[in-house]
Amino acid sequence: MHQAIAILDSGVGGLTVAKEVMRQLPQEEIVYFGDTGRAPYGPRAPDEVLKFTEQIVEYLLQFQPKMIVIACNTATAIALKHVRSQVNIPVVGVIQPGSRAAIKATKTGMIGVIGTENTVTSGAYPRALQELNPDTSVVSLACPALVPLVEKRLYRSDMARTVVSQSLQPLLNSPIDCLILGCTHYPFLAQMIAETVGPRVSIISSADETAREISTLLHHRGQLETSGKVPVHRFFCSGDPETFQAIALEWLGEQIKVSPVFWQMTRLSR
Amino acid sequence: MHQAIAILDSGVGGLTVAKEVMRQLPQEEIVYFGDTGRAPYGPRAPDEVLKFTEQIVEYLLQFQPKMIVIACNTATAIALKHVRSQVNIPVVGVIQPGSRAAIKATKTGMIGVIGTENTVTSGAYPRALQELNPDTSVVSLACPALVPLVEKRLYRSDMARTVVSQSLQPLLNSPIDCLILGCTHYPFLAQMIAETVGPRVSIISSADETAREISTLLHHRGQLETSGKVPVHRFFCSGDPETFQAIALEWLGEQIKVSPVFWQMTRLSR
Repeated sequence: MHQAIAILDSGVGGLTVAKEVMRQLPQEEIVYFGDTGRAPYGPRAPDEVLKFTEQIVEYLLQFQPKMIVIACNTATAIALKHVRSQVNIPVVGVIQPGSRAAIKATKTGMIGVIGTENTVTSGAYPRALQELNPDTSVVSLACPALVPLVEKRLYRSDMARTVVSQSLQPLLNSPIDCLILGCTHYPFLAQMIAETVGPRVSIISSADETAREISTLLHHRGQLETSGKVPVHRFFCSGDPETFQAIALEWLGEQIKVSPVFWQMTRLSR
Repeated sequence: MHQAIAILDSGVGGLTVAKEVMRQLPQEEIVYFGDTGRAPYGPRAPDEVLKFTEQIVEYLLQFQPKMIVIACNTATAIALKHVRSQVNIPVVGVIQPGSRAAIKATKTGMIGVIGTENTVTSGAYPRALQELNPDTSVVSLACPALVPLVEKRLYRSDMARTVVSQSLQPLLNSPIDCLILGCTHYPFLAQMIAETVGPRVSIISSADETAREISTLLHHRGQLETSGKVPVHRFFCSGDPETFQAIALEWLGEQIKVSPVFWQMTRLSR
C-alpha cells in the first residue's frame, strides 16, 4: 500500500526536512502540517507544546501515514517520547539525527548547538550527544530572534544578517568545530550563519540529517517507496496560507497548494 | 544485558567500520572476525562467498551479539539478504549506508562507485542508488588490485600510489561529483584515492556511514549501550594473527589481542 510520510512543524521550518526528503527520497509522498497560526513554539510553555503536538499528530493520523516526523526541535525535545508511546508507527525526531551527524563530523569533540529557548532549556542535545559519547563537550545557545525572521519571510533581508550576527556573538570565541542547527527554521539562514561562524566550523543541519535517517529506517522496515510513481504531496497550515505558500515556493522551488485548517484552528484554540 | 556488535569481513577491511564504531559509539563492545586466511573475497565464486559468510555468522552468534554487521561490500552484495533470513537480530550491510550518503551528498546526481569485481558485477550499488532515486547515474569501476595492497600491509607504499592512480584512470574524465569507496578496505587508501580524483569529487566511505546507521538502528531499537563502562573488544582472524595485529595497531592506534581461529580454519577449508 502506498503510504505517506507525515511531517509536522510549528510552522514553515519543517519544509527544510520536507525538501530534503523530496530530494533524497523522490518517490515518497509527504503530508505536511505547519502550525503557522501558533508559531513560534520556542517561547511557549512545554505543556502547551505537548498538547499542540498531540493534536497535530491526531490530525495527521487520518491520512494513515507510515511514519511521523516531528520536524521541529522544540516539539521533539518536549513531545517525542510521549508521541512514541501513543502511536504504533515509527516516530522520528530531529534531535537524534543531528546529534549523530555531529558525533560523526567532529574531530575535537567540541560541538555547538543553537536552538529555541525551549530546546536549549530542555538539555535534549547535550543529553543525546553525551549518551552517544560521554566525552563530548557541548556549547548551547538559545537564539529566540531567528524563528520569527523565517516565519515572517524576512530570511533574506539585511535585518536578518544583523540579527544572525548579533545572536551568534557568544559562540565566536568558542573552540567548537561543528555547529548543529538545532531548529528546522535555521537552514533558511544557513549561509548567514556559516559566514558568521567562519569556515573552521562545519554546519550540521538537523533537517538534512533527519531525511537520511528516515531513509535508513524505511529501508530496514522494508517500507521504502519504489513504485516509480510521481508522488502527490499535501500541505496544511493553521495560519495564513498565502505566506506559507510564498515561503514554500521560494524554498522548495515549486508551486504547492496549501489547505488551511480552520476547523482545526478553532478546536485547537479553545 | 550488555551485548556486543558483531562485525565480519574478508580480512582487515572491516577494521575501518570497527574504528568508526569505536569513535562514534565508544561505549559499544565489538566482536570482530576477519577471514584473512581466505581473503580477498572479490574474485571468488559467489557461492563460496555465501558459504564463508554463513560460517562466520554462525561462529559470531556464539557471542550472542545484538546486531551483525557485514562489513564487507562483496559479502553484503552476495549474502546480506540470505543472512537476514537466517537470523533474528538486525543485519546491517555496507552498501545501503554508502548509497544513502551519496544520495545526500551529490548535487549532480552522478555518482561513482569503486569496488571488487564481485561487488561491481553484482550491480548492488546501482540497484541501491536507483531504488532511492531512479534518476541517479552511476559509474562503476572494479579495482581488483587494491584489496591485496591493504591485506599485505602495503597501503602506505609508493607502489600503492602507482596502483591506485592506474586503477582509477577510467574515472578521471567522468562527470561524477562523488565517489563511493565501495569496499571497506579502501579507506586505508582514501588519501591516495582523493588525491587521484581531485577536490571536485567528494569521497564517501561506506565504512564511516555504516557506523552511523548502526547508531541510528540501535537508537530506534532502544539498544544503545549507555552504561559508561569501558568496552572490551574481541578480535578473531583465520589467517596470520601477527599481520592482522600490526595492521590493527596502525589503523586503530591501539594494541589489540587477536585470537587466531585455527579450528575454524580446519573446518572451513574442508
